[in-house]
Amino acid sequence: MGTNEAIEALTSSLGQRVSRSKSDLEMHGASETHFAPMPPDAVVYPDCTAQVAEVIRICAAHRCPVIGWGTGTSLEGHALAARGGVTVDFRDMNRILDIRADDMDVRVQPGVTREALNTELRATGLFFPVDPGANASLGGMAATRASGTTAVRYGTMRDHVLGLEVVTATGEVIRTGTRARKSSSGYDLTALFVGSEGTLGLITELTLRLHGQPEAIAAAVCAFDDVAGAVAATNDAIQLGLPMARIELLDRASVAAVNAYAGSDMPEVPHLLLEFHGTEAGVRETSETFGEVAAGHGGRDFEWATRPEDRSALWAMRHNAFYAILASRPGTRSLVTDACVPISRLAETIKATQEDFAHHNLTGPILGHVGDGNFHAVLLFDENDTGAVTRAHEAAHRLVERTLDMGGTATGEHGIGMGKMRYMAREHGGGWDMMGQIKRALDPDGIMNPGKLVPPGN
Amino acid sequence: MGTNEAIEALTSSLGQRVSRSKSDLEMHGASETHFAPMPPDAVVYPDCTAQVAEVIRICAAHRCPVIGWGTGTSLEGHALAARGGVTVDFRDMNRILDIRADDMDVRVQPGVTREALNTELRATGLFFPVDPGANASLGGMAATRASGTTAVRYGTMRDHVLGLEVVTATGEVIRTGTRARKSSSGYDLTALFVGSEGTLGLITELTLRLHGQPEAIAAAVCAFDDVAGAVAATNDAIQLGLPMARIELLDRASVAAVNAYAGSDMPEVPHLLLEFHGTEAGVRETSETFGEVAAGHGGRDFEWATRPEDRSALWAMRHNAFYAILASRPGTRSLVTDACVPISRLAETIKATQEDFAHHNLTGPILGHVGDGNFHAVLLFDENDTGAVTRAHEAAHRLVERTLDMGGTATGEHGIGMGKMRYMAREHGGGWDMMGQIKRALDPDGIMNPGKLVPPGN
Repeated sequence: MGTNEAIEALTSSLGQRVSRSKSDLEMHGASETHFAPMPPDAVVYPDCTAQVAEVIRICAAHRCPVIGWGTGTSLEGHALAARGGVTVDFRDMNRILDIRADDMDVRVQPGVTREALNTELRATGLFFPVDPGANASLGGMAATRASGTTAVRYGTMRDHVLGLEVVTATGEVIRTGTRARKSSSGYDLTALFVGSEGTLGLITELTLRLHGQPEAIAAAVCAFDDVAGAVAATNDAIQLGLPMARIELLDRASVAAVNAYAGSDMPEVPHLLLEFHGTEAGVRETSETFGEVAAGHGGRDFEWATRPEDRSALWAMRHNAFYAILASRPGTRSLVTDACVPISRLAETIKATQEDFAHHNLTGPILGHVGDGNFHAVLLFDENDTGAVTRAHEAAHRLVERTLDMGGTATGEHGIGMGKMRYMAREHGGGWDMMGQIKRALDPDGIMNPGKLVPPGN
Repeated sequence: MGTNEAIEALTSSLGQRVSRSKSDLEMHGASETHFAPMPPDAVVYPDCTAQVAEVIRICAAHRCPVIGWGTGTSLEGHALAARGGVTVDFRDMNRILDIRADDMDVRVQPGVTREALNTELRATGLFFPVDPGANASLGGMAATRASGTTAVRYGTMRDHVLGLEVVTATGEVIRTGTRARKSSSGYDLTALFVGSEGTLGLITELTLRLHGQPEAIAAAVCAFDDVAGAVAATNDAIQLGLPMARIELLDRASVAAVNAYAGSDMPEVPHLLLEFHGTEAGVRETSETFGEVAAGHGGRDFEWATRPEDRSALWAMRHNAFYAILASRPGTRSLVTDACVPISRLAETIKATQEDFAHHNLTGPILGHVGDGNFHAVLLFDENDTGAVTRAHEAAHRLVERTLDMGGTATGEHGIGMGKMRYMAREHGGGWDMMGQIKRALDPDGIMNPGKLVPPGN
């Protein structure tokens, strides 16, 4: 690999847009969770698609690794420079190019964050619903097939990317998809790039589907005696087809952490946090029906929030739950799991996981997008305590194995990155080899985010 | 190619399941529309995945083409044996394997038709919404990424296939997806096979997402002075987020054909056919709101049907519209277009198309799934009148070019098959070459449905 030669060529082509400063390399070699730092050899800040194509062409000529970077909020070390090389940071490609209210779609550059997009959309009556919690970049969200709290109603990034502009591993610029809402024209290249984690090319533009801001929104919290009751209420509501926009579980330990962090006073039992979108009458009807369903499973202390500021406070609390959990044990590192199982197996999967943690003396509050069968345990450990680190990783490993036994997936929304590679063979069998064949066909020199997603050697 | 050797080997392995009878070859070489017959050299009726794998292994060894066959209702000649070979008819793989009501999913073999599935689901309170009109096989619907009248509410096959079992071009059996509702684990192989038209492998099992049967259903017809009014009402309803389960346009000529065929007496002006799913109160509220929206665009003669038999009659009428149009000119052949454009461009696209047909003295009633921006013109012509055949094909060609000019796709739901190959280069640019690279990687000998979808030579 000619990484140094590539960086020299990049610097002479792109000048100040190429950085080798220590702080830049360190920042782009770090992760939010438990991975060891893996800095790149240089960081490039392109301003346009043509510059991205130039970067990849130069790197391809020198077989130098290329890694995409959005906001760095990945939880699985996706953007770590596992084999060094050049990180392409989309910070400066953050323009909203075209809001087309009539078609309820928008064209954006990959560095636009979801919050920036929604701020810009406010006056149009439209919004972009996918909400992974972090204020991630839309390019990064597409690359990891992100979802979050609203997927139960609106779907994931897979359902919201209508088309992409991509720079391939050879530096060619292609477009996938059209502005039509659906198409049967050929292989679904859009879906292939969504979730490809930068291993097949870099996304330089996205066309995203938008939704109308609902006439009415109501949020609620509801306490349950146990997780099983909360999950059973969720199941019933889904079977009834209730249009819930959000349905989030906090287990007892998560509620305690949130109370301590936010100064709230929720009873320390499992809770569902809910949101309904619709017409005034529709939201009222749905919320009443949900109340009855919940009561049938021990749901109580129902509290509704219809004022925007109360709803904002509620979801800020949910979004800060991760930080609240970290703050409950100052100085610890975290390992965040991402199991997603068929919803019929959700209650038993969570129960077995809580018992496992208790048995191994581990702290791991659980929260999750229960309407999708997806939950996270935030395992906390002192990174200087080797035994604790090992115990946390072993528990996370058992959780994935349990998830796969249940017919689920190792990752509902966080992606593979460095953290879930070891489960690809079991989850996909021969399909993983097929991913390797696709990678080899589209990136024969293996320069795009090497060491991620596909079997080693591809 | 050793097609004869392959068929000998198949016969010695699978015996009576291999047919070379004239009637079998003719039936599997015909299409529902305007394509010339292209019979295979043999037809195989496998009973299980192992037999499909055996067929592909034998064909791969002899480099003999393999073509999948569901019910033969493709409109683009997908299953014609363009280069001869062996057609695999899934007629005998028609078992519903596992209905999992708690998880609202079902595992089926590819030969199960959508009507057979819904009949079986009736007692469970669940249903499978994707409805392309024809009683197609679910394997065929996945292979062509079908959709139809309910896509505006429930989505297309892309949104309903949770996972697949596939026999690859080398005869290996792989599984894609899991039973979890979402996943970020690796390349979306499920999405790659949905819409791949049998060019990458054969689907031998599907896990499909189901929905709860709505508490209330109401259908309606609404007359408009012109197509522009009907489309404007559709746009407004979508902008408002009204949960319409179906919203279908019949233009004046289609209404006339339906009246003549079904003995109905709709005024001979454009109509919307609608359906709403929800709670009793929700359906009432939505239908009232839609009535107001429609009235604002000249909608009138609103007629509601809430009795199941009236609704059935309405949708039977819509599903028979294609046959009604054919019957309006006995003895003619048809060419069915499948344009899908951004909804803001729908009215002008339909108007330009109607003007074009009138200018060239062509009969082409228009109907469509207007909530998705997708519409069909059924061009009728006497196949012995060479001039008329040419004029019809030229008009269809201009329609596709117009659609691509509008930012749309050559095919919203019918697929590429033989009919849309010529538009792939323009619609996808370098993306079409990428499809060829993927094809070459996964089917290096080019035995899977050769002559379809990818650039010639792949």
